[in-house]
Amino acid sequence: MKKFDHLTKNAAGRIVPAEINGEKHIPYKGVGKYIPDGRKHAPRIASCTNYPDDGNKIVANLKEALIKAGLKDGMTISTHHHFRNGDVISNQIFDIAYELGVKNLRWFPSASFPCHEPIIKHLKDGTINRIEGSLNGPLGKFCSEGKMQGLGVLRSHGGRYQAVQDGEVQIDIAIIAAPSADPFGNANGVNGPAACGLLGFALADSQYADKVIVVTDNLVPFPCIPWQIHGNYVDHVVQVEKVGIPEKIISGTTQITKSPDRLLIAELTAKFCDAAGIIRDGFSYQAGAGGTSLSIGIYFGDILRERGWKARFIRAGSNKYPVQMLEEGLVDYILDGQTFDLEGVRSMRENPNHINTSPFTSYNYHGKGNFSTMVDVVVLGATEVDINFNANVVTHSDGYLLHGIGGWQNCLFSKCTILPIPLFRDRIPVIKDEVTTICGPGELIDVIVTERGIAINPLRKDLLEKVKNTDLPIKTIEELKDEAEQICGKPAKPDLCDEVVAVIKWVDGTVIDAVWKVKSGQ
Amino acid sequence: MKKFDHLTKNAAGRIVPAEINGEKHIPYKGVGKYIPDGRKHAPRIASCTNYPDDGNKIVANLKEALIKAGLKDGMTISTHHHFRNGDVISNQIFDIAYELGVKNLRWFPSASFPCHEPIIKHLKDGTINRIEGSLNGPLGKFCSEGKMQGLGVLRSHGGRYQAVQDGEVQIDIAIIAAPSADPFGNANGVNGPAACGLLGFALADSQYADKVIVVTDNLVPFPCIPWQIHGNYVDHVVQVEKVGIPEKIISGTTQITKSPDRLLIAELTAKFCDAAGIIRDGFSYQAGAGGTSLSIGIYFGDILRERGWKARFIRAGSNKYPVQMLEEGLVDYILDGQTFDLEGVRSMRENPNHINTSPFTSYNYHGKGNFSTMVDVVVLGATEVDINFNANVVTHSDGYLLHGIGGWQNCLFSKCTILPIPLFRDRIPVIKDEVTTICGPGELIDVIVTERGIAINPLRKDLLEKVKNTDLPIKTIEELKDEAEQICGKPAKPDLCDEVVAVIKWVDGTVIDAVWKVKSGQ
Repeated sequence: MKKFDHLTKNAAGRIVPAEINGEKHIPYKGVGKYIPDGRKHAPRIASCTNYPDDGNKIVANLKEALIKAGLKDGMTISTHHHFRNGDVISNQIFDIAYELGVKNLRWFPSASFPCHEPIIKHLKDGTINRIEGSLNGPLGKFCSEGKMQGLGVLRSHGGRYQAVQDGEVQIDIAIIAAPSADPFGNANGVNGPAACGLLGFALADSQYADKVIVVTDNLVPFPCIPWQIHGNYVDHVVQVEKVGIPEKIISGTTQITKSPDRLLIAELTAKFCDAAGIIRDGFSYQAGAGGTSLSIGIYFGDILRERGWKARFIRAGSNKYPVQMLEEGLVDYILDGQTFDLEGVRSMRENPNHINTSPFTSYNYHGKGNFSTMVDVVVLGATEVDINFNANVVTHSDGYLLHGIGGWQNCLFSKCTILPIPLFRDRIPVIKDEVTTICGPGELIDVIVTERGIAINPLRKDLLEKVKNTDLPIKTIEELKDEAEQICGKPAKPDLCDEVVAVIKWVDGTVIDAVWKVKSGQ
Repeated sequence: MKKFDHLTKNAAGRIVPAEINGEKHIPYKGVGKYIPDGRKHAPRIASCTNYPDDGNKIVANLKEALIKAGLKDGMTISTHHHFRNGDVISNQIFDIAYELGVKNLRWFPSASFPCHEPIIKHLKDGTINRIEGSLNGPLGKFCSEGKMQGLGVLRSHGGRYQAVQDGEVQIDIAIIAAPSADPFGNANGVNGPAACGLLGFALADSQYADKVIVVTDNLVPFPCIPWQIHGNYVDHVVQVEKVGIPEKIISGTTQITKSPDRLLIAELTAKFCDAAGIIRDGFSYQAGAGGTSLSIGIYFGDILRERGWKARFIRAGSNKYPVQMLEEGLVDYILDGQTFDLEGVRSMRENPNHINTSPFTSYNYHGKGNFSTMVDVVVLGATEVDINFNANVVTHSDGYLLHGIGGWQNCLFSKCTILPIPLFRDRIPVIKDEVTTICGPGELIDVIVTERGIAINPLRKDLLEKVKNTDLPIKTIEELKDEAEQICGKPAKPDLCDEVVAVIKWVDGTVIDAVWKVKSGQ
């Protein structure tokens, strides 16, 4: 796509295409400014007449299921990412599609991981036209270098639910890898040898896809309880030897940081929250699964314990740390969107106060509210922040698209959004004049915590007021940027071509930014 | 409606209107013969922009909520019946509507009860045009006598879900009385002073209604867990002093029968199931909450205990008897659509194997299957049965419409449907040449058990074969009918006018029969 084809400047001041993969999309209009007036996607009405009376929907294998589901050129195929880097089914799907000679598919995963590198061959051989979903690691590099036929479309977890609900993305076949299922298609993620916790990312797919295939390696007699996915939405069930590698749901970052700088950032973040009056009996937070975030959670736990307080809920990606807090009685509930380790899986299975959630409940912006606005404080990462507090979470400073959005955009709606980030990474400053890609508008980002000081968004006069007489190292964001540049020098602009390779959707389905082809890849 | 206006003969041989309350409806075409080809109802897309960031949707009172929801003439107002005869909210809704001068409403309850008798004044004063839902007791009498302005439309629980899902009934405002809720609208039936078990009958309403109001007397801080109703579907929350009278969820029939005839029927039913090989390790059943049904459940329990077997699931309306079996380990799961006593409520709250279900999961005929076909045996009541095994569950032999359908039609799809019924009631034979109203087609009704013998549907050659060498008193249905008539005489035909007052929907939304005005009420 060339520079002047269908391009327009959106409310974030970014040049974005108004037509994406042949369909019109609305440019970003500002936070809360685009109000949809349509109706939700209306799936076909099914009839029990067309399903077996004995409830047995098992077919011989995934290939047969895909054929029965009517796999053909140009279809949209969805998968979920609860196995994270341990997904084994997605690659099989496209190997089968290739074998059947099917072309031009849209892969619509809730996220992709390095384990999906084999997909590249099917992007090259025409089986897949494009991926709409996060493009982590090798797939992101491939896209950044302009090698993907269609445009990538990145959506947040909530934005993905919104897109499906609103009919912006109509899924032809959803494939749901399930650690437990019955022949009717009821399924869950908590039981079975490949237990991965929950299946919330596949909820929209089950509700709205034309055909739904459940794949499992742990078939149980009806009823498969809990039924996180309802068999009443499912067309076919496939039994396989291994549905996923649960050990690989563990992200490499789910260990508490040992870096002194990052520990300092964690401590400053916790102190800021305390000074600002955010931590209180009954408060709620989301702290993510990165090393710094985990340390912040530990600080929060210490404060609660010391004062005899109890958090109302932790919003998670769970792992052993929030689970310990739940079991110690420091929090009433974990509201969990994905489990990041096997302790999270165990807790979700055993503890009725460890609640499985879905992007519908937590993040869908086109619902009658969602719970992201009710979280007192969220702690998130970013690859870059700019002096207007805009933040980037998908591209690096060299322009490469290497990360997905996850629930990041959705979490920005919390009562206080904090980005604890190092001032520089590999001697490249993280705070810049302008971010390479805007994923989150500055007005939603309240606080930047670095190892050399804390910058509060000037829009948050209330927070500035609350911490003004403390010993916290409050600075302006410009001061932080200058400090970094004094150490590392002014960072170079990324070297990009005039060609859009992907777009970033905002939570309401509008286009907030474009990702441009990197020159090094030409 | 006069006899020859829009009337047509359907596949059950019944004369039914093709136009009902100004809308076209499809006449019954036979079991599994009508296949829909449309799309589900598409609710409006909402936006978080229009809902409060703090998640607090509380409004001062029900009147204000109804005004905010835009209550106006001609709207469809839905309620659920989990409080059964202890519902206190429905009457308030229509008192408010009357006070506001709103006219011509359609009340769409999941069922009505004698406690709703005060609604009659609003049927008379024009506030309500008609009730689409069960018409128990006084409301049924009112309708039977031709006094309701619009036509009554009776649907099964599954048929109600189907009608909402398919857009046949578009709910303008759903009011969900909830024993527990948070300010966001998450709600459940298991906690709080008015705990009634679950809220499954309100699921379709929450998903598809234009506006949703949750009313509670037990407001808890977010999150209200379990969230049987998701606040993401809810517009307004109202706090009231008393949301329902949980003691009145107990049906008068939930005691084991002491009648020798009925005990004999129960024993014969259990013996039949055993002889036919239906009872086995891992079998499943639904036995209802009537006195005879409860006794059958006791027999089933005795057989399981004696042989060291375990049922896979009991499909319920639960009360203390299935709960005892669950706690004794005689069954893996209770799949429960409504709790019939406070022991049922307690068990659902405490026991993760006591599962709350909804008509979507269990009964919706326009899903990709439902679990009613997987139940090995169901035991149901009937007001009348005819020699073709057609059965009636809504009208009495005098033509009065006094009962709702409940899940009765949906349950007929089980592997074996048994109606244990007395040969006569009040000296009126129950088996007739032709039922007053067909609610269930004979081909789905397998066995009639009376105190004087068992009739097996000739279509079920397999069952006839299995019991042929037993000492069970197998007879033809004609023989049973003759016996009853020898004792009681041939029953008189009901004295009916040429005017349709209500229709009975089949599970697929087609019209299986009409209910005619009784002459005595002219």
